[in-house]
Amino acid sequence: MGVEERRQQLIGVALELFSRRSPDEVSIDEIASAAGISRPLVYHYFPGKLSLYEAALRRAADDLAERFVEPRQGPLGSRLLRVMRRFFDFVDDHGPGFSALMRGGPAVGSSTTNALIDSVRQAAYVQILAHLDVTDPPARLELVVRSWISLAESTALIWLDGRLIPRAELEKQLVHDLAALLVVSAAYDEEMSALLRRVLAGEPADGPFGDLVGRIVALAS
Amino acid sequence: MGVEERRQQLIGVALELFSRRSPDEVSIDEIASAAGISRPLVYHYFPGKLSLYEAALRRAADDLAERFVEPRQGPLGSRLLRVMRRFFDFVDDHGPGFSALMRGGPAVGSSTTNALIDSVRQAAYVQILAHLDVTDPPARLELVVRSWISLAESTALIWLDGRLIPRAELEKQLVHDLAALLVVSAAYDEEMSALLRRVLAGEPADGPFGDLVGRIVALAS
Repeated sequence: MGVEERRQQLIGVALELFSRRSPDEVSIDEIASAAGISRPLVYHYFPGKLSLYEAALRRAADDLAERFVEPRQGPLGSRLLRVMRRFFDFVDDHGPGFSALMRGGPAVGSSTTNALIDSVRQAAYVQILAHLDVTDPPARLELVVRSWISLAESTALIWLDGRLIPRAELEKQLVHDLAALLVVSAAYDEEMSALLRRVLAGEPADGPFGDLVGRIVALAS
Repeated sequence: MGVEERRQQLIGVALELFSRRSPDEVSIDEIASAAGISRPLVYHYFPGKLSLYEAALRRAADDLAERFVEPRQGPLGSRLLRVMRRFFDFVDDHGPGFSALMRGGPAVGSSTTNALIDSVRQAAYVQILAHLDVTDPPARLELVVRSWISLAESTALIWLDGRLIPRAELEKQLVHDLAALLVVSAAYDEEMSALLRRVLAGEPADGPFGDLVGRIVALAS
């Protein structure tokens, strides 16, 4: 294998191991053994576990950011629901590693890992603004979208802790949560209200947003 | 001064400094100078900056947890609004330190600091359950409350970054956000729906929850 090919193979093996158990618990020996090479050879490609962890995390971050990309066609609620499904696929695939990373801790927290997490959040933010057809977001919209992203993260973390609620329900709930947070913001602000009206105007009655409205009306009556 | 008295004084001085600037930027020399003692004397009471930082953080965590305590009297929306005001008072007082801590990073993230953050989240969670009059929360309620707590954290962090939206608006918005997230969950689950009906039954039309319903009805029409 060439140097770059070997590096990529090691990153893949490491990501697999870092995803399945807390990175604290994964040793270089184990990575070497899983890759079928010697421990010194691992060090030939990566100076230490942290650099290999960061490389694996970079690959995972790129993967996750790609999952946010969704064609700007069809109802917004349905687009978001597809993105939420892919987000939960990712969380499902990388459960223990995702938890360890997002809950922080001395072994996983570094300025590089924090920057990678922020880059994924930023990718999610940019995608959502694109789907809302907004290029210059007012502060209130930025707040709603960014705080909803943190809500999605914490929802996924809580789901991983016991998986007590079916993930399909949570994927839909998060789409509804975004609509609900937009409604709360719109209730107090004219600009947000205009934005919400524009967004909802294109939603079909049987899409995720229309469905929620029907259920809330039923709840209120 | 006695040993304990001197320790407490140093913790107070350090908390003041760690609150106003990122803990990375605060030196032991500065703490010593602000306390009016020598650098070696600081080390006599605390083995290093991390232990002093952790002690200061423990005091801040206790302070914040106390602010969540609210008499169980009057409308729930108004109680939560008072708690949100005290939460934003705290965030306002400790802005740069709060941001540095919650955004993580090598200088501030340790298992002790993470445990302290979790203890404050748990205190908030326990208080909210008490106000909802729930002792054995179903998984869906736990999810809503815990994920709303993370929403409150991220809202505060985004507010600190430029203070573009008046904090009074965000305090109210967070109370409404909790109601909105409960409504979304109730739209799909009978148990949550029953809980929501019970909670809202005691809310006056002119309280924060009643106010929101009126505004949403106006928005929908």
